[in-house]
Amino acid sequence: MSKPSAMPKGNAAEPGPGLAGIDPGEEIYALASEFYPICRSITGDGVRTTLDILERHIPLERHELPTGTKVLDWEIPREWNIADAYIKDAEGNRLIDFRRSNLHVLNYSTPIHRRMDLEALRPHIFTLPDQPELIPYRTSYYADAWGFCMSQSQLAMLESIGGEFEVYIDSTLEDGALTWGEYLHKGESADEILLSTHICHPSLANDNCSGLALQTILAKLLSGRTTRYSYRFLFVPGTIGAIAWLSRNDAAVRRIKHGLVLSCVGDPGGPTYKKSRRGDAPVDRAMGHVLCRPGLKPTIIDFFPYGYDERQYCSPGFDLPVGLFQRSQFGTFPEYHTSADDLSFISPAALGDSFRWIAQALDILERDRTFLNLNPKGEPQLGRRGLYASVGGGKDAARHNMAMLWVLNLSDGSHSLLDIAERSKLPFDTVAAAADALHDHGLLADTGAGGCGAE
Amino acid sequence: MSKPSAMPKGNAAEPGPGLAGIDPGEEIYALASEFYPICRSITGDGVRTTLDILERHIPLERHELPTGTKVLDWEIPREWNIADAYIKDAEGNRLIDFRRSNLHVLNYSTPIHRRMDLEALRPHIFTLPDQPELIPYRTSYYADAWGFCMSQSQLAMLESIGGEFEVYIDSTLEDGALTWGEYLHKGESADEILLSTHICHPSLANDNCSGLALQTILAKLLSGRTTRYSYRFLFVPGTIGAIAWLSRNDAAVRRIKHGLVLSCVGDPGGPTYKKSRRGDAPVDRAMGHVLCRPGLKPTIIDFFPYGYDERQYCSPGFDLPVGLFQRSQFGTFPEYHTSADDLSFISPAALGDSFRWIAQALDILERDRTFLNLNPKGEPQLGRRGLYASVGGGKDAARHNMAMLWVLNLSDGSHSLLDIAERSKLPFDTVAAAADALHDHGLLADTGAGGCGAE
Amino acid sequence: MSKPSAMPKGNAAEPGPGLAGIDPGEEIYALASEFYPICRSITGDGVRTTLDILERHIPLERHELPTGTKVLDWEIPREWNIADAYIKDAEGNRLIDFRRSNLHVLNYSTPIHRRMDLEALRPHIFTLPDQPELIPYRTSYYADAWGFCMSQSQLAMLESIGGEFEVYIDSTLEDGALTWGEYLHKGESADEILLSTHICHPSLANDNCSGLALQTILAKLLSGRTTRYSYRFLFVPGTIGAIAWLSRNDAAVRRIKHGLVLSCVGDPGGPTYKKSRRGDAPVDRAMGHVLCRPGLKPTIIDFFPYGYDERQYCSPGFDLPVGLFQRSQFGTFPEYHTSADDLSFISPAALGDSFRWIAQALDILERDRTFLNLNPKGEPQLGRRGLYASVGGGKDAARHNMAMLWVLNLSDGSHSLLDIAERSKLPFDTVAAAADALHDHGLLADTGAGGCGAE
Repeated sequence: MSKPSAMPKGNAAEPGPGLAGIDPGEEIYALASEFYPICRSITGDGVRTTLDILERHIPLERHELPTGTKVLDWEIPREWNIADAYIKDAEGNRLIDFRRSNLHVLNYSTPIHRRMDLEALRPHIFTLPDQPELIPYRTSYYADAWGFCMSQSQLAMLESIGGEFEVYIDSTLEDGALTWGEYLHKGESADEILLSTHICHPSLANDNCSGLALQTILAKLLSGRTTRYSYRFLFVPGTIGAIAWLSRNDAAVRRIKHGLVLSCVGDPGGPTYKKSRRGDAPVDRAMGHVLCRPGLKPTIIDFFPYGYDERQYCSPGFDLPVGLFQRSQFGTFPEYHTSADDLSFISPAALGDSFRWIAQALDILERDRTFLNLNPKGEPQLGRRGLYASVGGGKDAARHNMAMLWVLNLSDGSHSLLDIAERSKLPFDTVAAAADALHDHGLLADTGAGGCGAE
Repeated sequence: MSKPSAMPKGNAAEPGPGLAGIDPGEEIYALASEFYPICRSITGDGVRTTLDILERHIPLERHELPTGTKVLDWEIPREWNIADAYIKDAEGNRLIDFRRSNLHVLNYSTPIHRRMDLEALRPHIFTLPDQPELIPYRTSYYADAWGFCMSQSQLAMLESIGGEFEVYIDSTLEDGALTWGEYLHKGESADEILLSTHICHPSLANDNCSGLALQTILAKLLSGRTTRYSYRFLFVPGTIGAIAWLSRNDAAVRRIKHGLVLSCVGDPGGPTYKKSRRGDAPVDRAMGHVLCRPGLKPTIIDFFPYGYDERQYCSPGFDLPVGLFQRSQFGTFPEYHTSADDLSFISPAALGDSFRWIAQALDILERDRTFLNLNPKGEPQLGRRGLYASVGGGKDAARHNMAMLWVLNLSDGSHSLLDIAERSKLPFDTVAAAADALHDHGLLADTGAGGCGAE
Repeated sequence: MSKPSAMPKGNAAEPGPGLAGIDPGEEIYALASEFYPICRSITGDGVRTTLDILERHIPLERHELPTGTKVLDWEIPREWNIADAYIKDAEGNRLIDFRRSNLHVLNYSTPIHRRMDLEALRPHIFTLPDQPELIPYRTSYYADAWGFCMSQSQLAMLESIGGEFEVYIDSTLEDGALTWGEYLHKGESADEILLSTHICHPSLANDNCSGLALQTILAKLLSGRTTRYSYRFLFVPGTIGAIAWLSRNDAAVRRIKHGLVLSCVGDPGGPTYKKSRRGDAPVDRAMGHVLCRPGLKPTIIDFFPYGYDERQYCSPGFDLPVGLFQRSQFGTFPEYHTSADDLSFISPAALGDSFRWIAQALDILERDRTFLNLNPKGEPQLGRRGLYASVGGGKDAARHNMAMLWVLNLSDGSHSLLDIAERSKLPFDTVAAAADALHDHGLLADTGAGGCGAE
């Protein structure tokens, strides 16, 4: 388990987001709970309703592209909406009821209203034989199909009842639009940090009410702050939403210097970080620095071309430095894409930890820069300047003194503060604080060359 | 043990040798058995007789260089031939008899016919005290000497008999020639793959009737096929033969893009692959890809300047990308260079496995190339094109789908299919098949830049 | 434990220092014993007296810089001298007596003569509660202070006696000079190898009478030899002495190609080698080659900006290829900076081992060079030239033969002898001897390009 109390805290007085000292876990959880009941899909009113809630927290730019619009190699599909769905027995009892769980309907299902026996119905039923009490989450976006998802026990009930069932899906698939939300926080520089999360899943708490809520609160808390980078927050339907955004934003794409996709950020597992395609982008190193510390057992994964929208951002024509942050890795936990991914699977504590790690990584990206030692020959006399922390200060003082020596030794113009933190195995905060102290005493000059990986 | 049934098979319909699906183990064993009885050395009629047999399978170009010819830093030695040899007791019984094993004579022995007692004979006797029943294989190519190799038990017999022995070696060392065989299979390109094996050892089944036979059958099976590369097969006496060939073939040397030396390919041990001097040549990576898979425990060795003719091919003035394939590594198995290296030590099954691994590596070299993703921005919509294998296809379908995503993601012009197979940890065959499917649908262009390590 | 008898010995007949076969352990120990009683500090007569002793062994150049002189970012401090110090009880008994241990006085203490009770005295007393029988070594160079160091037991005695004490430190802090000693051994080249050791510690045997004595004897033994490099031996007060030297020797600094700081070289622990800031400098590789061998368990440490004068030599404005050799690493052994670091803590055997390892590394730096194989195509015929050691020669002969093959294979102009030793995992001596034999037979040419890391 992580030990939050032992973590170095970001310094809110510093330039940069400085959000790492805040714990908005409860607020994120409350917002995720609001998102949870809504039946979302890649298009339709579920997305719009979700953006309405989100808009209460941050000023949102909404975009819609009409059905049939070409976006890169894809085309905006028809819009899907659903009012109701059920399977009734002969007496008219709702045996399977969309109103009890929107997972019951195959997402993007075509409409149907027919009487049929179980034999005819069975090809349209999806269950999880190995997890007999859970309803699976299934979709059919790009092939017309209808179907019901249910627990193995519910299927057994249908079998025991037998006879004819009334099968009803009151859905529409019509020309409409693809909808996404976007928020840009302007920093001192036009260079951007991208944060992106998918908004297309229905009642799955971790995947991805958690990501939606965390990203919303992160945007909200950041909006009042002065930052070096501009921050672009995307709330997009998976795959088609990211592709639509990429197809319409060439200029913004070129400004992206770092990025994170957020999904499944509320469960107690992980943390997991999947690197960008580049593998050594500053965001990869910053996340590694934050997560690889005593008390955490992170899973750091090399990029692979499957997962969430990092697939699109990291396609070779863009090759953006965008990684994926998760708690448990998708596909590896039993609750994944089932009705067990409910509000009891996520917690304010886990959401708060995820928030802090992300904020710490952003803080590193904000504060990383490259200094030049102005007294590079021999060590400058730190004692004369009162820079040595007294030994009575214990371990923190010793780390501060070592951090000053490391910063002086490596500030030759080719090492950023993150380079120095990695090399010295000291926390970035300690290194940055030492650099600030040395800079205040005229011992360092800011090269203006930016941080690690600066072009 | 290897599990051939679990191995991905090459596809004979594909361009390239496509020999990996054939199992000529029995045929190779039968041919090795034909080679086994012949008394070969670095020169002489043993080599010529061996080439006669070999020529029944492939059209062979024979070369002879006369004694005294300068080849690089060396000179072609006198030709050695032998008719008979023995040690007889006073009654004329052949106690040690060349006709029973040609290992009994120190290879390249000068002639002798003399009566002597054991005391005089002893400096000319070689045994293996630690393996008392085995006859060692010993040579004296470049220093005039005569001698007999025998088991420790046979020496004990001589000791118990005592008295005078008749010692007879009916050999000649005269001006003649060095002989080697060569076969060139012409491919679409003049660029060559070199396969080389030594033809100078007498009755040792693994070292190297196995290599001679495998290389012959490989050449024969390849001769009927269309290949991208040309293939040069060398059957040369060790060291002096390779040096002679190198000294006379500057143009061919420059065309060699990949190469393998084959020796000791029929025993049940290994497999062993010793890398070329370059260490990361395509042939090194292809052999590594073939051998480093579940079920095999290969020994992959960095280049060192001792062993077989890779010593010459990898000398710094040539530095050819030529590795060595063996089953057990030379010098590490107790049968090595003894009479226990007989036909019971090699088997059709082991020869068949060796053949398949070599064929698989050649297949990779043939098929490796670099594609360019023509839809590099975002993923192309594979579903629309019917390219996604259905999930019902199980693990193979999932691997095919992942392979397509990997090929698309890494086909930026700087990754070949082998690069992608290594990075994705998918079998080369799977990656190549995915690339073929994508290419067929117009999603990839062949850059013409060749495979990994292309210059 | 090291097994000196199994070590390859340097060859005194070879060019280069060739000191590795000598064992001056007893001589070094005797000299360290002479240095031990003297009360040294960063300035003052203790340093001068020490240089007087040292001068009996090597011709020394002495330098003094007056108090107040600017050296880089620092200033030469006042000169400290001390005649006597004690704490007496009411009866005049010397309870704490400088004459018994010069560690009793806080080094660089201001003078004091006063009567006071224990309460007033206590802030000026330093003990080691966890090592109650030992006197700590403490300094206050750059902040005016006075104080006494004593064992916890002595403090308990003062407490039990109580009442008033007479506190006396007869020291002076006046304008004077900083003193250091320097010896240059001229080699064939003006390029220099720097050896540096600190001369500022009082009665601590390992830290650093051992380093002072070893470096003195090394200089003495080297002075009679022909060497390729010039050798500069610095005997300097820690930090301020190195900074003073660096501030006055721009030309010499530019000539330094390799260097070692020596300290704590006489205890039975280690060996420890801390790499230069560059991390892969020839001296780092030479020390690694010497220490990473069977029978030794060296600690090889990456550079960090804390320790001895490598801090100054490796500051970014100089970035000299200078590492640190020690037995136990400073700060990690219980005797460190206490009265237990006495003459029983160091031994002739440990000093002799340290000497040999340093001499072996210097020998590598002297002898390393880059040859060119003049018969790069194929192997040259070594047998014809009588170069193959006979197999009867056993393991050494086999190693010699392999070393010749390695040297021939890698002498393509881009591998030095040390490169070849590292790659072949053969001892440098074996590789260098093989190269000499090949060179003598006209098979190698010296490229004149120097050794590994040559610019």
